[in-house]
Amino acid sequence: MVSNNALQLEGIYPPIPTPFDAKGHVATKALTGNVRIWNKYELRGYVVLGSNGELVLLNDQERLRVLEVARAAIPADKLMIAGTGCQSTLQTIELTRQAAAIGADAALVITPSYYRGRMTKEVLIQHFHTVADTASIPVIIYNMPACTGIDLDATTVIAVAEHENIIGIKDSGGNVVKMGEIRHLAGPTFQVLAGSASFLLPALSVGAVGGVLALANIAPHQCLAIRQHFLDNEWEQARALQIQMIPVNTAVTRGWGVPALKTAMDMLGMYGGLPRPPLLPLSEDKKEDLRCILQEAELSLLR
Amino acid sequence: MVSNNALQLEGIYPPIPTPFDAKGHVATKALTGNVRIWNKYELRGYVVLGSNGELVLLNDQERLRVLEVARAAIPADKLMIAGTGCQSTLQTIELTRQAAAIGADAALVITPSYYRGRMTKEVLIQHFHTVADTASIPVIIYNMPACTGIDLDATTVIAVAEHENIIGIKDSGGNVVKMGEIRHLAGPTFQVLAGSASFLLPALSVGAVGGVLALANIAPHQCLAIRQHFLDNEWEQARALQIQMIPVNTAVTRGWGVPALKTAMDMLGMYGGLPRPPLLPLSEDKKEDLRCILQEAELSLLR
Amino acid sequence: MVSNNALQLEGIYPPIPTPFDAKGHVATKALTGNVRIWNKYELRGYVVLGSNGELVLLNDQERLRVLEVARAAIPADKLMIAGTGCQSTLQTIELTRQAAAIGADAALVITPSYYRGRMTKEVLIQHFHTVADTASIPVIIYNMPACTGIDLDATTVIAVAEHENIIGIKDSGGNVVKMGEIRHLAGPTFQVLAGSASFLLPALSVGAVGGVLALANIAPHQCLAIRQHFLDNEWEQARALQIQMIPVNTAVTRGWGVPALKTAMDMLGMYGGLPRPPLLPLSEDKKEDLRCILQEAELSLLR
Amino acid sequence: MVSNNALQLEGIYPPIPTPFDAKGHVATKALTGNVRIWNKYELRGYVVLGSNGELVLLNDQERLRVLEVARAAIPADKLMIAGTGCQSTLQTIELTRQAAAIGADAALVITPSYYRGRMTKEVLIQHFHTVADTASIPVIIYNMPACTGIDLDATTVIAVAEHENIIGIKDSGGNVVKMGEIRHLAGPTFQVLAGSASFLLPALSVGAVGGVLALANIAPHQCLAIRQHFLDNEWEQARALQIQMIPVNTAVTRGWGVPALKTAMDMLGMYGGLPRPPLLPLSEDKKEDLRCILQEAELSLLR
Repeated sequence: MVSNNALQLEGIYPPIPTPFDAKGHVATKALTGNVRIWNKYELRGYVVLGSNGELVLLNDQERLRVLEVARAAIPADKLMIAGTGCQSTLQTIELTRQAAAIGADAALVITPSYYRGRMTKEVLIQHFHTVADTASIPVIIYNMPACTGIDLDATTVIAVAEHENIIGIKDSGGNVVKMGEIRHLAGPTFQVLAGSASFLLPALSVGAVGGVLALANIAPHQCLAIRQHFLDNEWEQARALQIQMIPVNTAVTRGWGVPALKTAMDMLGMYGGLPRPPLLPLSEDKKEDLRCILQEAELSLLR
Repeated sequence: MVSNNALQLEGIYPPIPTPFDAKGHVATKALTGNVRIWNKYELRGYVVLGSNGELVLLNDQERLRVLEVARAAIPADKLMIAGTGCQSTLQTIELTRQAAAIGADAALVITPSYYRGRMTKEVLIQHFHTVADTASIPVIIYNMPACTGIDLDATTVIAVAEHENIIGIKDSGGNVVKMGEIRHLAGPTFQVLAGSASFLLPALSVGAVGGVLALANIAPHQCLAIRQHFLDNEWEQARALQIQMIPVNTAVTRGWGVPALKTAMDMLGMYGGLPRPPLLPLSEDKKEDLRCILQEAELSLLR
Repeated sequence: MVSNNALQLEGIYPPIPTPFDAKGHVATKALTGNVRIWNKYELRGYVVLGSNGELVLLNDQERLRVLEVARAAIPADKLMIAGTGCQSTLQTIELTRQAAAIGADAALVITPSYYRGRMTKEVLIQHFHTVADTASIPVIIYNMPACTGIDLDATTVIAVAEHENIIGIKDSGGNVVKMGEIRHLAGPTFQVLAGSASFLLPALSVGAVGGVLALANIAPHQCLAIRQHFLDNEWEQARALQIQMIPVNTAVTRGWGVPALKTAMDMLGMYGGLPRPPLLPLSEDKKEDLRCILQEAELSLLR
Repeated sequence: MVSNNALQLEGIYPPIPTPFDAKGHVATKALTGNVRIWNKYELRGYVVLGSNGELVLLNDQERLRVLEVARAAIPADKLMIAGTGCQSTLQTIELTRQAAAIGADAALVITPSYYRGRMTKEVLIQHFHTVADTASIPVIIYNMPACTGIDLDATTVIAVAEHENIIGIKDSGGNVVKMGEIRHLAGPTFQVLAGSASFLLPALSVGAVGGVLALANIAPHQCLAIRQHFLDNEWEQARALQIQMIPVNTAVTRGWGVPALKTAMDMLGMYGGLPRPPLLPLSEDKKEDLRCILQEAELSLLR
């Protein structure tokens, strides 16, 4: 199991979007500018090249460039967790190596999913363990059924978690029962991160140590406050804030996704910009709906 | 919306099994005996003729007999919620009328599901509202996707909940995000009950007022304690007990279902007996597994 | 396996709707009138009390009445297959017994589905074999995933089919690969009936002997012709007719279901009438769409 | 719609595996050797870099190398259809451009799927049309729900098919009803290819012009014969062969997938070799099962 001096993940992380300029190229200055704003909050760190970072739409060079620019903007006391999971085990190993060289503190490795009929427990264990064997940084499992069509069950997670270099899971599936089981069976040193703000408080209630939350890109204060109220046993306040955040969280996640998250960032004074095709920009009428939702949620960001 | 003097549902309810004798007939004395044991706990009431009551395997006469026997054994200060949902709207109305005449305090009405391709929002609203219009007792929506294949979405629940005689929902789907949304959008007078002990604490954390829990048949003390710790802000204890109950809850719900619940009751000194075909009794090796799980959970019942 | 003198099922069957009068009672004269029209075609027989017969919305007395009236109107040389499958094994046995007494030639037994988590291969085999053991008429398996959420796999069907009194399957799932496998593995005496006209020709192409087709209620001539062209190796004509029937078949099955089938019957001069709640009548605009679809398909019935 | 001189796709295509050597590198000579064997059959052409070609496990350089080697081995009178679909529209355009430069006759473009919640009809139409606009070779839609979790519905396919440079679809979903609808609604110039041998005959029966069949890698003679019997109205023979091929087809597709296909090629004297991780080689006991299945199917290849 994990050694005592394992990387401590407790806290809140935004999975940051990758900004593009008008020509569709990675907008590195915009990325730096965004990180500087987020740095003003007590976030534990960042996930770079996650689903919201459009990892699967970037080429090899762009992936490294985004990691380099992000690392330069992220202070040493905040974690940079790099999304490095590819369909191929070898490509995952290589991207993990590169991310470590650039200064990532941990690698977030999604389940391969294309050959899902073959993604048996045995195959998944071997994939994660092979990656973890060769990685010089700790590995975090990334369970993301809405994108992969694969929802890891508790027994598979427990088996994968036996590797000493696999320190936790970001679970975006929303099954808090399973999160509780994982927390129970994998032991206290295996760290569970909620994958969406929609179930942050329920996940904390069954033992999650924090969350990787798209919402934290545009509402870092509120996400941090939900966790702090929870830690302080201020239960009513935690619940009120959790429920208040549901509409805005839905809008920027399963409702309208990355295009909405980027538009919301633009509306709040950050740089969001356009998503990459095949993703399409938010339509004008949905932009208006989003604007109303943001206003109702009373979001604003430190400048 | 609900009037101020609406039925208050806060609390824990076992959905009680229907016991059968060796010939397969309803065992009325066994039913009475079981209720007397449960009456020793601070349960808010009982669900009779729910999924664990094998409603769909009973004929018309048996359904009424079970309600009568249960009501006679349940004290007036505890609620009897009767499962009255049938595929047909008319049959649901009729069974609800009969249950009210027998003394049920509320009716639990499951979504009709056979013609699921036709079960649009409009159809479901009309079904529930027609039943609620004619019912002399309050109606509780029963969302049970594991049995019906239908998982009500939040907007449908909100629309159904606008009827003044529809006072709450038992949600067995396990999506606590949705429970939070319903709680948020339907207002504080619409009461959400968790449909499984596996997510009792997470559900309470987003605003549920209690739970209808198969586990409460065999672990009433523990189910009550989870809720009490939550109410007392004893967060660590609530979580520890919630996590401790997961294996035994799984065994008697989605793991092995009604046959396991009945066997567990036998093992704990109540009357469980056999399920009705097509349900088969628990196999011998699973009985042994169950015995171990019960011992590990350290369950025992007041006598 | 089946004896040589087993009931031969080859042919086309409409699963006939149960007509209701203005008060919602079973309209027995309308039922008789409808059957007289269908009797003019070379149909092999009828399915009474199937999904289109709204079996699950009828009470015990109504079920027997429908069977009696139908049998009186169906000539002795045409088969009456009675839908007798209930959630309970005992109730299925009882309804099968009653149907046989009324003169049904075979029983169509749907998979029980409420406790779907428990509907293992073992449970399903035992259910079907218990029913077949006690039935005085042959049993046909009814696989209807769109209504039950359960899709029997080939190995389960093969195992169920080993009983000598189980002579075939009506498969409404549409997986023609599986139909081919079943036909291959269960042997030539086990008879496969397509459960929807949408895949009649493909099913015949892999060995089905006919079909139970909602479309045959309103387009018996066309359904019979597809099969006849197939038997005559008139491949192009079979395909053209099969493709031509797709829109109207979709309308009265997965598109708008029983309400549309009944409305189409009204439009073609039969007695359709209203469905039972929770099913709602077809809306006015969909009625117009349906009228166009019927006209385009050039349907008319013998009088 | 498609011009009269559009590429004619009628016929059978193996989606060829990408062979790797002992070090895991692309084995170009083995690829050439395999193609020379297949060239002895009356196949219409080949799909290179499909799902069986492990496209998603190859890096950019390897993809081009495989296309080059395959094109050199494929005679000019046989088609090379290149799998060029990536998650990103831009990368799909680029790979399609490169494939055309190498001599591919058409591009097979799979549905992007990672952001499946965003893959609306509008997004998919725009993706396919943007790719088709810029492609110098015709585009074929690739519907592969078992890998992507996305199953294109008929109306989306029809809308995508309106582009004059989109000439057909390879549909691996197995819904032959839908294939018939597409064939009916998109018109005779839009060409449907069955995506699996398991439903080749049913698909032909509703209007498909051929198939891209993993089975054609190891049983080209049988796949060709099924289609020829169909064309010759030799219905019984077609069906017998179709049914006979089901077990072996299942083994190398949804049963055990690419690893089994490669092992079967080894067993039949071609070069199969190992799949790339995360795919694992077939276990020893499954190898024995596969050997029996191949023997029972009486497969052998021309040398």
